Amino acid sequence: MRIGIDIGGTKIRGVLLKNNKAVKKYEIKTRNKNSQKVVLVQIFKCIDKLIEGENKKRIKGIGLGVPSPIDFEKQRILTPPNLKALKNCQLAKVVKDKFRIKAVIDNDANCFTLAEALLGAGKGFKIVAGITIGTGVGGGIVIDKQIYHGEFGNAGEFGHINIVKNGWRCSCGRKGCVEAYVSGKGIIKIAKGLGIKNSNPKEIEDLARLGNKKAKIVYKTAGEYLGLGLVSIVNTIDPGIIVIGGGISHAGNLIINPAKEIVKRAGLNPLTKKIRIVKSKLGREAGAIGAALLICG
Amino acid sequence: MRIGIDIGGTKIRGVLLKNNKAVKKYEIKTRNKNSQKVVLVQIFKCIDKLIEGENKKRIKGIGLGVPSPIDFEKQRILTPPNLKALKNCQLAKVVKDKFRIKAVIDNDANCFTLAEALLGAGKGFKIVAGITIGTGVGGGIVIDKQIYHGEFGNAGEFGHINIVKNGWRCSCGRKGCVEAYVSGKGIIKIAKGLGIKNSNPKEIEDLARLGNKKAKIVYKTAGEYLGLGLVSIVNTIDPGIIVIGGGISHAGNLIINPAKEIVKRAGLNPLTKKIRIVKSKLGREAGAIGAALLICG
Repeated sequence: MRIGIDIGGTKIRGVLLKNNKAVKKYEIKTRNKNSQKVVLVQIFKCIDKLIEGENKKRIKGIGLGVPSPIDFEKQRILTPPNLKALKNCQLAKVVKDKFRIKAVIDNDANCFTLAEALLGAGKGFKIVAGITIGTGVGGGIVIDKQIYHGEFGNAGEFGHINIVKNGWRCSCGRKGCVEAYVSGKGIIKIAKGLGIKNSNPKEIEDLARLGNKKAKIVYKTAGEYLGLGLVSIVNTIDPGIIVIGGGISHAGNLIINPAKEIVKRAGLNPLTKKIRIVKSKLGREAGAIGAALLICG
Repeated sequence: MRIGIDIGGTKIRGVLLKNNKAVKKYEIKTRNKNSQKVVLVQIFKCIDKLIEGENKKRIKGIGLGVPSPIDFEKQRILTPPNLKALKNCQLAKVVKDKFRIKAVIDNDANCFTLAEALLGAGKGFKIVAGITIGTGVGGGIVIDKQIYHGEFGNAGEFGHINIVKNGWRCSCGRKGCVEAYVSGKGIIKIAKGLGIKNSNPKEIEDLARLGNKKAKIVYKTAGEYLGLGLVSIVNTIDPGIIVIGGGISHAGNLIINPAKEIVKRAGLNPLTKKIRIVKSKLGREAGAIGAALLICG
């Protein structure tokens, strides 16, 4: 048995994984304004609820996915934009000291990609790229069933791939990143430009499904921007499959098909046309399942 | 002893590598119009000249770097834009049959990166990205001293990273690739836009070194476009060092410094500021040395 905790800016989701199945789940709301103490108490509660009634000795470890870059050498959370209280926290150590169970941290989108690569849409592929599109845009790379971290722990930060020169301002401070166009915020901005005001991505998705032309154009536009980012992924790490998750991925083909059209024309190597671009298979639990998979089965 | 042959659109360069030193060199001019037979005869001549006077039994193998994507499974050269005669050629087999020595092919920019990673500027780094800027823009990734090929052999094609939406047309047919702006052709186009006509990158470089303002702006502009591509590399594979080679790299800091300024602002993870961006150390023989290094020492 393994425990996985997916720590987001609005929710903490936990699963208990038994034979690669999420047999127990627990969820708790959180928010960016919370103090570190409050967030830690919430994480502890989530873990307690999952351990409850289990033989603690049979739990091999606790994996924690955090919405932040990580200093893996120092095992320290660096700068979480949507959960600032965890800045500098050595969360794995804190959890291990509290529960006396092995604990490991990784980036939340890395956990998502690991879950999809091992148990989801990427199963059987050698190189899997994962992208999570929500408030922000995260990503991860799994090669031969292992998360690829890069030299400084920054690998797979697909949200900050450059797609437009001097484009829209991104949360990272730069201009023209994928995240500035393809995230929830980006979609709302695209919609505003087309005259759809006071709306959110879910409403625009519903409108698009009902045939509203402007709403369809919003997702087509976002999908094309996503495609430009995918072109760079294809020409850099050349994955066999790209798995798209996060809240915005519910739009499915509304956003994925325009991206595919762009990727078709990427690069010189005709073999890359075999690449698959698909929606997440594990859905909203993918992050927590992937966190559990950080612990060797 | 190992032989390395770097096959380009205008030159075939060979080296004999002894204890990781290029102890013998041979060079021959070629051109895109040549037939496959002519190109093969040139390659054979280059190998003959390097074997001449050596104990053939002590030559462990022949590595061949080709300016093309490769179907590694079928060991076939796919679509070489600047040496069309080699399309579909199973060059390693042809060379092995001719010389009765083990032969291996890989992409030329992959060979460049391998050489820099093992014996050049990237020595000691875990993850090395290489970029060759000449007529076109190539690239390669070396992880733990091995070339990373990706799922379809398309990894490290940094010339076709997207940097501008609907930008200048690239040789690959797409618009807005790094190569459309940062290659020799791109630099000439940037120069034309600034009123510098009938010139070539070397002349513009010389002018820039003499203090000509417009010429300096040409390289600054190309460097900034290069930087936009590097931002995407940093946020995808997160290398420890990026080594820049090819003819245009002679411009050195004229093009590298503006790129560094752009990369400084890349991404959320403060640790990526440690990345090094440097000029090739092995110079024009890097490709041939890297081809020889395809053969295990």
